[in-house]
Amino acid sequence: MLPSLKEYEVKLLNNNVWQRSALSPRDRCLSTIAVAISLNEPTLLAQQIFFGIKHNITPIEINGIVTHLGFYCGWGKALEASKIILPIFEQLKIDITTIQPAPPLFKLNEEFECNRAKAVEENVGSDLFPNLVNDTTQVLFHDLWLRSDLQPRDRSLITVTSLIANGQVEQIGFHLGKALDNGFTHEETAELISHLAYYVGWPNAMSSIPVVKKLLNNHS
Amino acid sequence: MLPSLKEYEVKLLNNNVWQRSALSPRDRCLSTIAVAISLNEPTLLAQQIFFGIKHNITPIEINGIVTHLGFYCGWGKALEASKIILPIFEQLKIDITTIQPAPPLFKLNEEFECNRAKAVEENVGSDLFPNLVNDTTQVLFHDLWLRSDLQPRDRSLITVTSLIANGQVEQIGFHLGKALDNGFTHEETAELISHLAYYVGWPNAMSSIPVVKKLLNNHS
Amino acid sequence: MLPSLKEYEVKLLNNNVWQRSALSPRDRCLSTIAVAISLNEPTLLAQQIFFGIKHNITPIEINGIVTHLGFYCGWGKALEASKIILPIFEQLKIDITTIQPAPPLFKLNEEFECNRAKAVEENVGSDLFPNLVNDTTQVLFHDLWLRSDLQPRDRSLITVTSLIANGQVEQIGFHLGKALDNGFTHEETAELISHLAYYVGWPNAMSSIPVVKKLLNNHS
Repeated sequence: MLPSLKEYEVKLLNNNVWQRSALSPRDRCLSTIAVAISLNEPTLLAQQIFFGIKHNITPIEINGIVTHLGFYCGWGKALEASKIILPIFEQLKIDITTIQPAPPLFKLNEEFECNRAKAVEENVGSDLFPNLVNDTTQVLFHDLWLRSDLQPRDRSLITVTSLIANGQVEQIGFHLGKALDNGFTHEETAELISHLAYYVGWPNAMSSIPVVKKLLNNHS
Repeated sequence: MLPSLKEYEVKLLNNNVWQRSALSPRDRCLSTIAVAISLNEPTLLAQQIFFGIKHNITPIEINGIVTHLGFYCGWGKALEASKIILPIFEQLKIDITTIQPAPPLFKLNEEFECNRAKAVEENVGSDLFPNLVNDTTQVLFHDLWLRSDLQPRDRSLITVTSLIANGQVEQIGFHLGKALDNGFTHEETAELISHLAYYVGWPNAMSSIPVVKKLLNNHS
Repeated sequence: MLPSLKEYEVKLLNNNVWQRSALSPRDRCLSTIAVAISLNEPTLLAQQIFFGIKHNITPIEINGIVTHLGFYCGWGKALEASKIILPIFEQLKIDITTIQPAPPLFKLNEEFECNRAKAVEENVGSDLFPNLVNDTTQVLFHDLWLRSDLQPRDRSLITVTSLIANGQVEQIGFHLGKALDNGFTHEETAELISHLAYYVGWPNAMSSIPVVKKLLNNHS
């Protein structure tokens, strides 16, 4: 590593940011893995997969994260992540046949889903975009989001992270609201943005502030 | 590939999305190749180049796609794509010396070009940005867009795809209008967005909806 | 390289864009290196590091660029760049132990810093985001921006470049203003955008125009 990177990594990241109590190391790993997949950064991804496994992120959860982000950052990003992760699993003697490809699904929250479907019908419309509206319901909200290989709170955490990483400011509101509903705290949210500043770059973190602030102020 | 990716790839992409009749497999390939180049995803790119050649996308067209996207996503993306594609051409015994480096040019649409040049003069201005205005005319619209190694409709298709992949919402309108003028249908446009949701990630597809919707509603 | 890329690279980039006098080859290298790091483009990065060293960009400056962009594009991008650059340094027999990891710091401009801190306090707020506000001050503006391994003008140049490359339009104003304060001229700014069109893609260059134009018109 270039000398100044090494110096900052030890002094600033490892010995300072990652030690702060406002967000657990496990959450920092989940989020940083999501950044590395979203931004296609293989070196950071490999480092964080090793680190995440040490912090009890399971292979089933890793499989779940990559799959989820395949839908939120595009299939090609998931393929790249898969190429990095499979050799690490092999090296760690993790048997991927033990990863259940079809986990049982959580129960749907009917009220939330009804509001979501109504909003998509209004904003997208099944008259003009029949397959997109249908896939959003059937593939994302009646399947992917109900998969039990990731806790809803963790699924929300990686979704919000990936939106911030990709500068998708206007869609943070919906998913951060869902994250707060799913038990992610205000303090964790604020610290997540501070953590992400280092991993998605300061501009992306800063651009997310207005919508994050609005949500923290309105969400009880 | 990680187990859930494999499962979804077969069940959802290959056996469902790619089988839908609203967009041809050739168009899905053109568009997915454009995504893989725009987002620098080598695994998806290699897969789709093989697949595209099977669906009669020619080496000359592939050379044309990479070159076009060099200008729309930056030169470095075209260099990365070139590194992936050349060994595939070699493996398939495709002789790259048969790819004509200077194809004859299509005829300029004078009226369209006059309006375009006027808009750039107003929005950019050759007083402040002489080289940018001149290059936009000479390099893009009097050369690149007239190259006959890609049909205008296909050139529009990959341009719109690359704008959606890179979240360039405000410039979709101009190029989608051009695509519709060039014979891309309303039904194909709607299905393109549904297809892209899987390859550029749901948020990028969703962010494109307001401008796509407006255009489909206004374009006869 | 694919035939049309090669043809355009020679005719258009090497023999035309890079020969224009409005921006020095050294500045074009600094900026193109910043693009390649920001967009994670290893082939372009390697090419430009060799080219930059020929144009008197020093290894200390390269270490400084990568470190700076680690904070502006995210840590993972800096790790990828480091992996490309270290073997080039080795090949050129550049001894990285001669790169001082802790250069002396420039003196803080108290007035500028006071305005900046006030704006961040208003827009972010240390009540909601204590660590982000504190890190922005201590890590970015009281440390990174004062490092003497890059001239302030060059630091501004790569920051503006990286914001344009990543489509961070709303934050260009602050940093381009700083660049103009640091001695970057109006003519250099206009030509930078024309140069960047080729390296970040036309849409990103075009999207930066309104804010660049406003700044050039208001900055004396």
